[in-house]
Amino acid sequence: MKIFISGGGGFIGYRLARRLLERGTLAGPDGKQAAISRITLFDAAFPPAPDPRLTCVAGDVADTAAVGRALEPDTASVFHLAAVVSGGAEADFDLGYRVNLDGMRLVLERARALARPPRLVFASSVAAFGGALPEVLDDTTTPNPQTSYGAQKVIGEYLVTDYTRKGFLDGRSLRLPTIVVRPGKPNLAASSFASSIFREPLNGAVSECPVPETTGIWLLSPRRVVEAFVHAHELASSAWGVNRAVNLPGITVTVKEGVEALRRIAGESVAKRVQYQPEARIQKIVAGWPVRFRTPRALAMGFAADLDIDTVIRDYVADEGIRLG
Amino acid sequence: MKIFISGGGGFIGYRLARRLLERGTLAGPDGKQAAISRITLFDAAFPPAPDPRLTCVAGDVADTAAVGRALEPDTASVFHLAAVVSGGAEADFDLGYRVNLDGMRLVLERARALARPPRLVFASSVAAFGGALPEVLDDTTTPNPQTSYGAQKVIGEYLVTDYTRKGFLDGRSLRLPTIVVRPGKPNLAASSFASSIFREPLNGAVSECPVPETTGIWLLSPRRVVEAFVHAHELASSAWGVNRAVNLPGITVTVKEGVEALRRIAGESVAKRVQYQPEARIQKIVAGWPVRFRTPRALAMGFAADLDIDTVIRDYVADEGIRLG
Repeated sequence: MKIFISGGGGFIGYRLARRLLERGTLAGPDGKQAAISRITLFDAAFPPAPDPRLTCVAGDVADTAAVGRALEPDTASVFHLAAVVSGGAEADFDLGYRVNLDGMRLVLERARALARPPRLVFASSVAAFGGALPEVLDDTTTPNPQTSYGAQKVIGEYLVTDYTRKGFLDGRSLRLPTIVVRPGKPNLAASSFASSIFREPLNGAVSECPVPETTGIWLLSPRRVVEAFVHAHELASSAWGVNRAVNLPGITVTVKEGVEALRRIAGESVAKRVQYQPEARIQKIVAGWPVRFRTPRALAMGFAADLDIDTVIRDYVADEGIRLG
Repeated sequence: MKIFISGGGGFIGYRLARRLLERGTLAGPDGKQAAISRITLFDAAFPPAPDPRLTCVAGDVADTAAVGRALEPDTASVFHLAAVVSGGAEADFDLGYRVNLDGMRLVLERARALARPPRLVFASSVAAFGGALPEVLDDTTTPNPQTSYGAQKVIGEYLVTDYTRKGFLDGRSLRLPTIVVRPGKPNLAASSFASSIFREPLNGAVSECPVPETTGIWLLSPRRVVEAFVHAHELASSAWGVNRAVNLPGITVTVKEGVEALRRIAGESVAKRVQYQPEARIQKIVAGWPVRFRTPRALAMGFAADLDIDTVIRDYVADEGIRLG
């Protein structure tokens, strides 16, 4: 079976691709495990020297012809991760809608045109939530995004559910917590600090944290989010019912708790590299984000959170081959 | 001030236009009442011999050039009512998305390009709700549409809220109950029966009701919905806050209660013209619709429901100049 991953050159998409190579099989449209014959990664850019077992196609997810070529007619499964991140979609309204809405619709239309209705897993986000929020959100909380990115993600979820209802595809949308620890460099996402406070100090650099240490983060590790994508794909259609979007489990960690864990794991000299440099623009966005959830639906479906922030940091250290002092 | 009404040739849009002519003024972008200098109705078709004080422009709401020409740069207020109805959008998926989503986006983009950010009132629908529903819905119930029409309306609401948040316009979305009694003829909407059970018998014809008499309808009269559009427009922006969509008040009436009211008002011979002709396709759609709501938010904002179904029928009889035997 052929698999298509939009945003497959990105951090999570590429990790997902390597995880799928490792597995070797996925549930086909009939629900039976089938050998993966090809994984196509579609993105604007790719890691240097990508795994030769992966087919990398460079292109724009909002370009009809490019998506049409890359998403081959006999594709069995689609993972749609391509997106302009929150800060980017907020800074460039038109670009955000072009990629996050027009691109989404192109992928859905192409999926609809495939030989068989594919399973499709969509990366949504807890940026869906905002405005006046309960202290603890749950599966009944109504999305009320306060960023264009969040609005585009919610709209994408409704499209996935409608295309699924019509039988055009078998869709599943995951509302991702903030992914921590992302390797690499800070990016335009307003949530960039949530990884930076661990990553930069572990790399020997100072991290300028734009939010106060009391700020809470609802987070999930790269390992767990990749497992969530695979699990979302593997679940039977009947496990999803008519509502195709689910809040993934996560853990709530304050910046202070994160820095304390960093101190336990890497020592005082590393933890001291987190410095507070308030940024009103970031604080305003982050203040609107949900911090605590109950996720009974996802847990009943078999999705899992990380054990604790210490485990998240230790996994990052192991995955990136970082040597501690 | 100039006003633009998409779907202005339709039943509610045209009534709204005549109501605005009667008022003569509306709140301008600065909140102060201003004289209405022009009302442009944009639609595919118009009533024969429309009021000469109205500017009728024929066109397709999904045609960029047509919307661009009709929605003039100095327009102060936009009412967006144009839509493919529920049954139509369900029968033709592509047409539904083209008109109800692409058309919506064109109107929003055009509104964004106006000289001043306009007030914009969007006709959404309780078709937003579906799936596993509480017995009584309220302002916290999460939309979960089970038709493409409903999905398109919810998506439109999120767009209106996002464009408003960005300051591109000052939007307000109304989730309309089923409008009863619509004059004219049965249409493709799955809710068509809700008016037919009154209209056809009062016109001397038989009404074939596709649902059982126990079926409940959450309804609002044409008079009240026109008032709701005006009221939604006139409310200050601050009355809306960050969530720009509201469930309008309505009343819950079963088919049986409706027929009993018809009997009280027009007599047994008229009420007997309602005949039951079960239609599985319609019943399946209608079974997923919400029947009862609590609408504290809308009531606090000053929106109002009809007094009772008898009043709704009597208003219809008066508005249409029907003589009761």
